[in-house]
Formats: sequence, structure tokens, C-alpha cells
Amino acid sequence: MTTEETPSAEFDAILDRAAQAAPTIAATTPRQRAEWLDRAADALDANAAILLPLAIEESHLTEDRLTGELRRTTFQLRLFGEVIREGAFLQATIDHADPDWPMGARPDLRRMMRPLGPVAVFAASNFPFAFSVAGGDTASAIAAGCPVVVKLNPGHPRLSRRVGELVASAMQEAGAPTGTLALVSGMQTGRALVLDPRITAASFTGSLAGGRALFDLATSRPDPIPFYGELGSVNPAFVTEQASLMRAEDIATGFVGSVSMGVGQFCTKPGLLFVPAGSAIPGIAARVAAERSGAAMLNERIREGYGTSLGNLAAHPEVTVLAGSADPGIDPAPTLLLATAKAFLASDGALATESFGPTGLIVSYESDEELLAAAESFEGQLTATVQGEGDETVVPALLAALADRAGRVLWNGWPTGVSVTYAMQHGGPYPATTASQGTSVGTTAIDRFLRPVSYQGVPDALLPAPVRDGNPWSLPRRIDGRTILPS
Amino acid sequence: MTTEETPSAEFDAILDRAAQAAPTIAATTPRQRAEWLDRAADALDANAAILLPLAIEESHLTEDRLTGELRRTTFQLRLFGEVIREGAFLQATIDHADPDWPMGARPDLRRMMRPLGPVAVFAASNFPFAFSVAGGDTASAIAAGCPVVVKLNPGHPRLSRRVGELVASAMQEAGAPTGTLALVSGMQTGRALVLDPRITAASFTGSLAGGRALFDLATSRPDPIPFYGELGSVNPAFVTEQASLMRAEDIATGFVGSVSMGVGQFCTKPGLLFVPAGSAIPGIAARVAAERSGAAMLNERIREGYGTSLGNLAAHPEVTVLAGSADPGIDPAPTLLLATAKAFLASDGALATESFGPTGLIVSYESDEELLAAAESFEGQLTATVQGEGDETVVPALLAALADRAGRVLWNGWPTGVSVTYAMQHGGPYPATTASQGTSVGTTAIDRFLRPVSYQGVPDALLPAPVRDGNPWSLPRRIDGRTILPS
Repeated sequence: MTTEETPSAEFDAILDRAAQAAPTIAATTPRQRAEWLDRAADALDANAAILLPLAIEESHLTEDRLTGELRRTTFQLRLFGEVIREGAFLQATIDHADPDWPMGARPDLRRMMRPLGPVAVFAASNFPFAFSVAGGDTASAIAAGCPVVVKLNPGHPRLSRRVGELVASAMQEAGAPTGTLALVSGMQTGRALVLDPRITAASFTGSLAGGRALFDLATSRPDPIPFYGELGSVNPAFVTEQASLMRAEDIATGFVGSVSMGVGQFCTKPGLLFVPAGSAIPGIAARVAAERSGAAMLNERIREGYGTSLGNLAAHPEVTVLAGSADPGIDPAPTLLLATAKAFLASDGALATESFGPTGLIVSYESDEELLAAAESFEGQLTATVQGEGDETVVPALLAALADRAGRVLWNGWPTGVSVTYAMQHGGPYPATTASQGTSVGTTAIDRFLRPVSYQGVPDALLPAPVRDGNPWSLPRRIDGRTILPS
Repeated sequence: MTTEETPSAEFDAILDRAAQAAPTIAATTPRQRAEWLDRAADALDANAAILLPLAIEESHLTEDRLTGELRRTTFQLRLFGEVIREGAFLQATIDHADPDWPMGARPDLRRMMRPLGPVAVFAASNFPFAFSVAGGDTASAIAAGCPVVVKLNPGHPRLSRRVGELVASAMQEAGAPTGTLALVSGMQTGRALVLDPRITAASFTGSLAGGRALFDLATSRPDPIPFYGELGSVNPAFVTEQASLMRAEDIATGFVGSVSMGVGQFCTKPGLLFVPAGSAIPGIAARVAAERSGAAMLNERIREGYGTSLGNLAAHPEVTVLAGSADPGIDPAPTLLLATAKAFLASDGALATESFGPTGLIVSYESDEELLAAAESFEGQLTATVQGEGDETVVPALLAALADRAGRVLWNGWPTGVSVTYAMQHGGPYPATTASQGTSVGTTAIDRFLRPVSYQGVPDALLPAPVRDGNPWSLPRRIDGRTILPS
């Protein structure tokens, strides 16, 4: 499963077009770019009948799942259009000149966000629509005013090219310059992309090893660039004593459902479930898991990787197989493993390793102290979940420990199924991501591709519209320290 | 000019105390931390009579300059107190559950900013108060809720320790935990600091070489951390044809004043002035510069560095000395150099190098095309300045080119004297900084030390105050996509 490397002359022409498009796009209005995004969404919706069969063929995901993902993808494109039409993302801030400013007279200063320039997007394998060519990274970068060069995922090259053609031509018909969106392919090309001086930022969704290698390249450049890598997560879930007693059936069923959804191929799959020793949950989970049939994974490379990581976990001397098999076979069905919290804590992280596939390790703990010690043992996570009852004494400390380590903390829910909203955070401390301050899902994903510029003493007629006196774009703004909403 | 390395046992104890303080500080309210900052400011103001003589002795800066800088420093501490009391920095965002959300039912999601953890601050030499132990980096990090370990600047070790003691004990009396602020010293200790696993972010103001070396360490860690390095800038200024004809005297005087202020030891010193060929400005500037006397620089290392960089510029075959001398001597007086834009453009960046001291290179251009070509030749800058008249045709393109390259764009002003306000941006693309999205001056400096966390489905009683239904902290919030101000 490799794709051809983009020939170097073609690569160079693509990067040149992106660099040439950058100032043109930066000079467009958010309303213009919102129109491009709307048209791109329309084009994908209109071609669903062509795109879905291609996606099914290349990814082995179900039609239902992919139909939902396409809906999410076009919704996301349109939502970023709404976000930029509203304009808070520009963070327009005005300080009028003030001779009495306590540290000394202050000049007139006006600050706003501007696009960084051409962005490299490394597409993921597991969301052929939503984290690929026209996914959240591309949508947020173009919304910000940046041209995008996508390094396509070798798992779905034909779908990628088709989506790329549809979106690029829809945007171009709506007025976007040539060079707004282009595709390259191949692993060496990907390395060249992140090192290319015309690229000003990169985003990535994929493996820890692959993401870290590209992060190292991005930061090694003569001019280092931001690298937003989403590198995965084991997403621990913690069941309190009371929750285990009151909702064992629901929790076990919910856990197995979240673990096996989409053949376990989600960055947010809960890979670990901590339950009180003696809980009924493992037994119920084993029964529920045994009822589930297997399905094909995205591709052979991912199936092999899953076999290796599952095999490693199952081979740990303190781990037993509770349901399914340590050998996932061709169409993996759910596999559940079992260990104690003592063994987990003694494993020095070995039992906190992500296994990308339909497996979950259930860990039994003896006391609230052991539960907290486990929670505090984790490195950065995309998500962490508590199944609990509100009046238990361990809960506040548990939530606090998890908020210190994860980008999203869930209560009585499951982390798979990441909604695209204003308040979503899909990120977390390293190794969940290489940039814990960014998110790759939700409307604030746009912030990753912007930087602030202040204008000092510039006459109104020469200022960009967002910071002009008359507020021609009707933006929410911060003026002399106070937030002022447009009337 | 070296300082002793902090002994490793002491270093370890300092880092342990910072790590232990982190969750305690993260759990305080902004009002509590604002009180710490106010008390710290009060302590510095109350001890001005002790601090100023120490600062004068160690930095050789004038009493006027240092009095102003101390005022700026205590103002800055109090301003961050105001910022966190107001609370917009928390970016509190609430999405209520919505079964009709177009991509599929959305859960209740609430997002807010949380502190990163212990921050390393590398103090600068040239602002012994405002960019040192209790400067903007420390103020913004503590305001964010992060403990700070300052690596003191060897140029003013005694002042640093005194300020550290005063501020740490004032904050402690106001309730801050031990470990909120501590100092370490020594170059090897600085390297150990940025590599220490207990440190979660670092900020730095200093040289390109030193900053890049620390950036490389920060990104090489097993768990890379954000490194906010402000590495300096040449801060080009561009005089248009009309401005040169109408305001030659003012512009020449302003330029020499900005170049020589504080013996040229500002990151924002305008190192280059582009003027139309035949302009009267060079002649006037030479006369004004010749009237100015010299003064001592911060320390011997900086004086030597200035001698080297000035010597290199003056030795360029296309550069002539217009005023002063290529050998700055003990107490450098202003030196002005002269070259053509043709020579500047052909120098491949050699004439766009920062020389940290009271020197400026005046570059004459033949046409607006050459002016724009020069503007477009620059790497990232902290500032870029236009001296112009609003109706000139070259102005919009010039401003646009500069906004693409600088963090702050000035019109008919001079870049030295960076005001601390809401709309200030003190940053810029590499090599001006290692993180163009951050600022080290102004209220948004706090954003560097925060990361977002989303809470999904968490009951009101278990949520942090900023995202509870009742808005107990009266914050401006974004609710279901709309900004809502507290009543």
C-alpha cells in the first residue's frame, strides 16, 4: 500500500502555485472564503453517489458509517463558513491612543489575526472524508485564509483525488485562485513537503512514530514551523464503585460498543477500562463482546499493526484474554483483555499503549487510592472518561487528575463520536498531540493557522477592515479592554 | 560575566517545589492570583529606593530610564491582575446538548483554558525589570496559573535575586504556595531547565543563537514543550518619496533618537532606514547623530558583540560610514552607515543583520519598485515602520508586504517604546521569534501558558466555575456559538 511519489517538477509547481495564491487568499474577505467552503460542501453532497462506493471500496468501512462521515464533512465545511462570516476568529482588538495610560502615553494600536500562509495537511487513513482531503484541517486552514497542500493518505488514493478535484474546482468556480487546494502523494514527498520553505504550518493525524518524525523535521528547519500532530491516545475510562454497582450492564455494553465501533479504528477508542475488583462488568463485557462479529480493517498495514500491538498486550505475563482472541485474524472481532491495577502500574506504561483496533483492556482496582494512582500515571491523552455517580468522594480528585492530562474529559459517556462544535477540544498534552494548545476538531481549529499583527498609528483608510473605526464587518471586538458586540 | 551554576540538589528541590505548587495554583481563582500580582507590584514600588541603585550599578542604564521601566513593570503586574479578574482569557465556551445538530445529536460540551504547569522564564539583559524576574513573562505565566522558574540573566544577578525575594515573599504573604516563583542561574542550569520533565513551557528573550539552541533542546525532548523565544529583529523603516520631501528633519531626528535611545539596546531598535535617493534625510541624520554623546552599554559582552556586528556591517565593501565610527569604543555614540538598495538587495541578507547597539544603516532606493523589492526581501521581524503620506500609490502594497513579515506595523512612528496594552503584538515570524502566534508584551501574552480542555456531559456541580450554568464568575462566554457578555 504505497502511492507514487509526486514527481519533483510537479511538486515544485504545486508549491509555487500555493505560494502565489497565499497573498491573494489573504486579501479575500471571510464572506468570499465562506462561499468557497459552501460550494465545496455542495459539490461533495451532489457527488455522494460517486464518492461513497469509492470510499467503501478503498476503506472497507460500511456505507452507514461513511454516509454519516460525509454528512459530518460537508457540515464541517459549512460550519467554518459560518464561523468566518461571524468573525470572532479575527480577535479584532482596538486600543485608542491614551495620553494617561499609567505606564506612559500609549499610541493607537489595533490587533487582528492574519493567515500564516501555505499549510501542509497530512491526511488520516481512518476518516477518508472527515480527516482527509476536505476534512477539518483543510476546512479550517482555508477558512483562515491559507492555501492547502494535502499529502494524501495511501489508504484511499482514488477517493482522495476525486474529492480533491471536486473541491478544488468548486472553489475555483466560486472565485478561489488556482493553488488554493492541491494534492501530493508519497512518503518522501511528505517529508519534502514539511521541509519546504513555502510551507508555513503543517497538520497531521496518524501514528506516534510517523507524526514525531515529521514534527522533528518541522522543528529542524532553518525557519521552524508549527506542526499540529494528532498522534493518538489510549483514552482511559474509569468506573467508580457506585457506578459499577448501579449500571454494570449499561457500562459494559457501552464500553464494548465504543471499543468495537468502526472496527476499533478511532483515535478516541477507549483502550482501557478501570473497574472495581469484583465488579460484574468484565463478565458482562465478555458476553457482549462474544456476540459481536468481526469486520475488515482499513487496510493490510493497519491489520498487521493491530495484530502486533494486540499480541504484545496479550503476551504480557499479567494479562489474560477475557473475550475474543489475541490473534485478530482477517476480520477482527472484539478482543477484551484483563489485568489488575497493580500489574498495570508496575508495567511502566507497557499496558498503557494504544492498540489501534477493536480491543480493550479491563483493569481491576482494589481501592480509590489505586484508582487515583492509575489516573495520575497517564501521559497526555485526547480523552479521559469517568463513569461515576456525582456524590462519590473520589470523583473531584479523579476529574481534576484527568483534566490535567487530557484534552476532553467525559462523564458517563464514551469518547468515540467526536462532535464538531464550538466547545469541542480534540487535542491533549504530548504524546496525544505535538501541540496541546491546538485542536483538530471544532471551530477553534482555525486558530492554528493564524497569527496576530498589530497596527500602530495607521490611518483608518489604510487599516484592514476588521480594525477600522466604523467596524464595517460588524465584528465582535475588544475596544480599550472591553468586549463590544456589534449592534 | 558568568553566574554560578545552581547546585544540582538545589535545582532539583526548586523544580520539585514548582511541580508540587502547580496543581495548587491551578486550583486558585483568578481573583486570588490577581491579589498576588498586586502585592508583588506593591512590594517592588515600595522598594524602588533599594532596587534602582542596584539596577543602575549592574546595567549602566540611566535612573530615568530605569524608573520608567520599573513603573512599566509594576503596571504590567497589575494589568495582568485586571485581565484575569475580567476573565475573557479563560475563553469559556458552552454548547448545550442539541439533538438536532446537523451532523448528528451533539452532547453538552464546555471548553475553557487551563494552565500548562511549571514555566521556565529566561530573563533578558536589556530590561532588568520589565523582561526579567518579575517581567511580562513571569507576570503572564503566574496570571495564567503556572509556577515560574526564572533563569536569571548574568548581567544583573544581584538585582534579580533581590526582586525574586521581594516578589516571592509578597506573593507568599498573599497566599501563594511555596514554589510559585524561584530563581536558578548558570548556562548549564538553563539547558537543564528547558530539558527538565517538570517544565511544561519556556519563554526567552535574547540572541538568535542562544534562543535557537534552547528551542532545539525544547523540541528534542521526549515530550516536546512550547518554546516562546524572542530572538531579535532588525526592524526596517521605510520613508516614502513624499514623506521624505515634507518631513526630512522630523524623520531624521526621530530615527536617530530611536536608534540611540538606551544606547541602541532594544529588540525594536530600527536598524535600517530606507530613503529615496537624493533625500536630505542622511545629511540631517548625520548632523543630529554627531551631536549625541556616547554612553556605557549594559555589559562588556554586549559591547564586544556590538563592536563585532558593527565592524562587519561597516566592512561591507558597499557600505560607508556616515556619522560616528565603525569602532564604537568604550561608550558608544551613534554610528550611521550608508548603502544603496541595490547593494542591500545584492548582499543576500548580510546588510539585514541585527547590530545590537546605537547604529543604523540608511539605504537609498531609486524607485518604488526597488522600495517594494527591499520590503519583500525581509525575513520575520518584530516590527516594520512606514513613514509616508496616505495618498501615495506605493503605500498599500508596502503595508501589505510588511504585515506579511512583521508582528507590528507602524505608521509615522518609531518602534522603540513598546506599550503594554490589549492590542500590542510583540512577536513575528521566525527569526524574530520561534513562535509567531505568541506575544511577549501585552495582555494576550497569557495565552502562551494555557491550553484548552473540554468537559463533556459533566454535571454542573462537578464543572469548574467558568463553565457552570450560573456563570458564577460573571465571565464573557460563547454560548451555542454566540458571545454573551455578563449582565
